[in-house]
Amino acid sequence: MSHLVASIQRAAPALNVVMHGEPGAAHAEVAACWDPPPGALAAMPNLRLIHSIAAGVDNILSDPALPALPLCRVVDPQHARGMSEFVTWGVLHFHRQLDLVMSNQRDARWLRPAQAHPAQCTVGVMGLGEIGSRVALDLQRLGFTVRGWARQPRALPGIEIFEGESGFEAFLADTSILVCLLPLTSETRGILGAATFAQMQPGAKLIHVGRGEHLVVADLAAALESGRLGGAIVDVFPVEPLPADDPLWRAPNLIVTPHMASVASANTIGEQIAHNVQRLLDGEPLGNVVDVARGY
Amino acid sequence: MSHLVASIQRAAPALNVVMHGEPGAAHAEVAACWDPPPGALAAMPNLRLIHSIAAGVDNILSDPALPALPLCRVVDPQHARGMSEFVTWGVLHFHRQLDLVMSNQRDARWLRPAQAHPAQCTVGVMGLGEIGSRVALDLQRLGFTVRGWARQPRALPGIEIFEGESGFEAFLADTSILVCLLPLTSETRGILGAATFAQMQPGAKLIHVGRGEHLVVADLAAALESGRLGGAIVDVFPVEPLPADDPLWRAPNLIVTPHMASVASANTIGEQIAHNVQRLLDGEPLGNVVDVARGY
Repeated sequence: MSHLVASIQRAAPALNVVMHGEPGAAHAEVAACWDPPPGALAAMPNLRLIHSIAAGVDNILSDPALPALPLCRVVDPQHARGMSEFVTWGVLHFHRQLDLVMSNQRDARWLRPAQAHPAQCTVGVMGLGEIGSRVALDLQRLGFTVRGWARQPRALPGIEIFEGESGFEAFLADTSILVCLLPLTSETRGILGAATFAQMQPGAKLIHVGRGEHLVVADLAAALESGRLGGAIVDVFPVEPLPADDPLWRAPNLIVTPHMASVASANTIGEQIAHNVQRLLDGEPLGNVVDVARGY
Repeated sequence: MSHLVASIQRAAPALNVVMHGEPGAAHAEVAACWDPPPGALAAMPNLRLIHSIAAGVDNILSDPALPALPLCRVVDPQHARGMSEFVTWGVLHFHRQLDLVMSNQRDARWLRPAQAHPAQCTVGVMGLGEIGSRVALDLQRLGFTVRGWARQPRALPGIEIFEGESGFEAFLADTSILVCLLPLTSETRGILGAATFAQMQPGAKLIHVGRGEHLVVADLAAALESGRLGGAIVDVFPVEPLPADDPLWRAPNLIVTPHMASVASANTIGEQIAHNVQRLLDGEPLGNVVDVARGY
């Protein structure tokens, strides 16, 4: 976190920016955090604003003693771009069957895979916030048939959108590659499990770049073993780093990536937090306020 | 080839379409071919048109007894799209360091690579024909800094272009990822060899989707062994299929793909050849005529 302290300080030289635990921190008016120890925020009597250092706030919302204060998050346009790069790589990897080709290389086997038009490949994007929408539109621009699933009604030009629990089965039925970019809420925890996989086409692929807790690890391993899922790229795990002795590292047709799909830059985080602190001091409306009841 | 016979016949039911060697073939007026045996075309007395079944014509031009007849090629817009998909996958694979991440997975190592803005990554595209131009523009749209190298002056919006032999050194100097989409000519044969690799940044990457004969295989292996090249994706080889005992299959940091980057569809090939035959019969100008002196 110390590089973030420096980023915030650089963006707002007049502020007093300290690490949690350092002198003065207990009297802070603003807390910038990602995964605060339960009760730590409640123990700060002067607190006026809680600011996530990232797009997600689920670790903060899980604090049972969370003070009823404004909660903001960082929305970095470069973050959506980075996520789109990663998902585009993953979708092309599966669509062009590079998984198979790279496995064939290990056996020195020259086998040209069939080439299909991207419109024949249906990518289903779960979660259509800033990031999911950008990813969906970028994939559509590459020619893929893109469908979206969201809790609330959304409109994205040219993309068929399915809503809520009632639309989930139809959304999954034709999906060749499922991309998870959902926020983590009580409704989405464990959503990537056996019940969902069973509704997908046999051999469908998964790209999971949401939250580790969306995933039921045992169900993923079983779906890959049985071939129910034909392959997966998983970037987030319930326990991170994934322990070196975790069997997932060697699960069949699974690419494990180290929570790297997109990382907001320290400069952007510092600037957005400094900007919101200034707005707080000026009595102006805050940016990127989280709807605490909704969870994102 | 028999599926191509069917495609041409489907597109032009009135024509008599036969395989080389079948009755009537010796009297054909049009030859559709990819790698004709030397002298085979010269032995066809009624020939009026030679049609490549692909974008490249180097195998045809290498026939020392090639008759002086119009030579046409197939230009399939879907072919450029497929190539762009493959190169985009490869550029993202290197830019986001998935090569390193996938190697780390084999050792169960969780190490998040640094994330750079794509503008910090310079992709150099050699060859700016229909396909190279499309690839260059698509990569630029993703935010990469794209430079091009071509024999003849070209203009592509926002892309710095280097010309001819005199521009080659400057083109190579800043290139992080080199993409080869050149036609094969006497000037480009062996261009991917030690002299070129020595002018690139140490650790630069190569994506070779041109022709096998562009590549000096021993120099590629040496550049990968020494780390002069930090990685390569090679789709075309002087001998294809790459023999199962070829050491290239296991060269460090090399992804071998089986000449799969883009394959024109049989339907498109059949339609374009049928269209040109009809124009020949009607005395109309032919489409996609090759400049034999230039070689493409």
